[in-house]
Amino acid sequence: MAEAFMAAEMAEQPDVLRRLAARRPEIAAAINSLVPESPVGVVMVARGSSDYAAIYGRYVIEAACLRPVALAAPSLHTLYNVQSNHDGYLAVAVSQSGRTPEIITVLERMAATGARTVAITNATDGPLVEAADVVVSLGAGEERAVPATKTFTASLLAFSLVAEALGDVPWTDDDLDALPAQVQEVIDDPEPAERVAAAIHDANGLVSVGRGFLFPVALEAALKLKEINSLLAEGFSAADLRHGPVAIVQRDFPVLAFYSPGPAQADMEALIEMLRKEHGAHVFTATNSRDVDLPLPEGTCEALSPIPAAVRAQQVAYALAMLRGVNPDAPPHLSKVTATR
Amino acid sequence: MAEAFMAAEMAEQPDVLRRLAARRPEIAAAINSLVPESPVGVVMVARGSSDYAAIYGRYVIEAACLRPVALAAPSLHTLYNVQSNHDGYLAVAVSQSGRTPEIITVLERMAATGARTVAITNATDGPLVEAADVVVSLGAGEERAVPATKTFTASLLAFSLVAEALGDVPWTDDDLDALPAQVQEVIDDPEPAERVAAAIHDANGLVSVGRGFLFPVALEAALKLKEINSLLAEGFSAADLRHGPVAIVQRDFPVLAFYSPGPAQADMEALIEMLRKEHGAHVFTATNSRDVDLPLPEGTCEALSPIPAAVRAQQVAYALAMLRGVNPDAPPHLSKVTATR
Repeated sequence: MAEAFMAAEMAEQPDVLRRLAARRPEIAAAINSLVPESPVGVVMVARGSSDYAAIYGRYVIEAACLRPVALAAPSLHTLYNVQSNHDGYLAVAVSQSGRTPEIITVLERMAATGARTVAITNATDGPLVEAADVVVSLGAGEERAVPATKTFTASLLAFSLVAEALGDVPWTDDDLDALPAQVQEVIDDPEPAERVAAAIHDANGLVSVGRGFLFPVALEAALKLKEINSLLAEGFSAADLRHGPVAIVQRDFPVLAFYSPGPAQADMEALIEMLRKEHGAHVFTATNSRDVDLPLPEGTCEALSPIPAAVRAQQVAYALAMLRGVNPDAPPHLSKVTATR
Repeated sequence: MAEAFMAAEMAEQPDVLRRLAARRPEIAAAINSLVPESPVGVVMVARGSSDYAAIYGRYVIEAACLRPVALAAPSLHTLYNVQSNHDGYLAVAVSQSGRTPEIITVLERMAATGARTVAITNATDGPLVEAADVVVSLGAGEERAVPATKTFTASLLAFSLVAEALGDVPWTDDDLDALPAQVQEVIDDPEPAERVAAAIHDANGLVSVGRGFLFPVALEAALKLKEINSLLAEGFSAADLRHGPVAIVQRDFPVLAFYSPGPAQADMEALIEMLRKEHGAHVFTATNSRDVDLPLPEGTCEALSPIPAAVRAQQVAYALAMLRGVNPDAPPHLSKVTATR
């Protein structure tokens, strides 16, 4: 079966998340020993899906450690040789393969200029594992489909666990313990995503949108639709969409909107109403209710909701590939390790 | 004339830049007095075109002050009430109108948690001007077209001048002095952009790409094409494009590629060759030569090249609007001040 890898790897996610969550004490101990007191700032280093996991990380880690979090501009280090001072900083690199040259180079340079370093990776050896002070291993097993699925949701959970080690987080132990079963609930219910895929089957383009904790899911949904289906899908925060890009949303244009009950909900609902009434958009909502296009599990708290929501996004991209007769495991021109410098 | 404002405001750019550059000593004195020694980090607050100016700012300011620069996630402050500690930080807000509520709220909260604050704005009064310790006024005069043009390039130059005050920069006084005439040279030569607009007249989508200092120009080019022409245009860094999104670039797909002689050139040239040979893309290059689709002035250094390159991007979006019979001054559903919170 052409679609064997991606579907199988999506199905493994509850187990991967359960195994990773069970390692909370070990991860907390390693982070606490590396960062005994709050850093002066945090920098993230990533590309692709891992970059979107890092955007989730920037929210949960800034909320926990109460210091500004930056996403690194790798070219400053790899091309322009800027020797920024990272004294007092924590640097976190994310790479499922652990083998993207620019990610390793940037983390090494941050370490050389004073940062304590963490790597979130599915690799168990190799250059990124060797470069980092602390390795948060995803333990997701080999991922053979080019589109990252289980390593993406595991990276989100890894950030949640790192955040827990750094300070207060907006979820409880019970919320975290419930997560694998909630992801299983989504995986056992693929029909909503198949209906959305059928509705966008002929679309030329799509917008996905979220805000706050769900913003990186909007980015990841668009990336999956781009890389698997060659669909012109762009992800936005609700606020950025309003600042100009909303002009692309015309009558019947498809929009995927991700939100959960919480502080970002009112802004998302106002945006959805505006897109429907003023633009005539076809908005598909993903939220924690059974009565929406893409139901998310009821009871998932907003800050952990990106994990089941990302699985919904995977399902839509996968179902669209099945409808269009595309092999999701190996999109043309892409490879599993992207050797950017 | 429907197109009166945008064209007139584009034409004003050399004068706006000349006037702003003449205020270098005053701006340097204000920044040096606010930040007598290097901050522990810098945070930027912006949305829309101003956010892309801030991405340019993150490169030049990190290169000058040698401390990590972060782009703020406004919702952490406006929705989630995260009280990050900004002791020792410099916060820079960018807003052409000076009236976007979330930008003001975030800067005020950063000030309240320890940051020294700078506002880059075209406003001369109002809440952002009142909130900031130092105001770098763009002095661009009223901008009436909804798409930002002269305030965008003035914001880029403002960041260059702030960077000069903070440390060493990768350009000379002569490079800066030559800039207004170089922008005039682009404005006096609209035909290349008109030819590109004619070639992409019927396109359903487009990718724009740059790397390093020119990356924000790729983002801004795509935003202009989205907001003025409702074109599904997405901007990428060369490295991010390779990590998956490149799958949308199929045979004859239009790509705008921005680069200048310098450290990012080899990576951009390799990408362009790959897009042409492996994807069959129709790549339009904007670089400092007369023999390319969108010539940039010869002699502009890479780190200042985003300013004339942004004018090339404006010309393409404007020429496409003329071809398609769209009024660029007032795209449907958009207004000059976007009231996000």
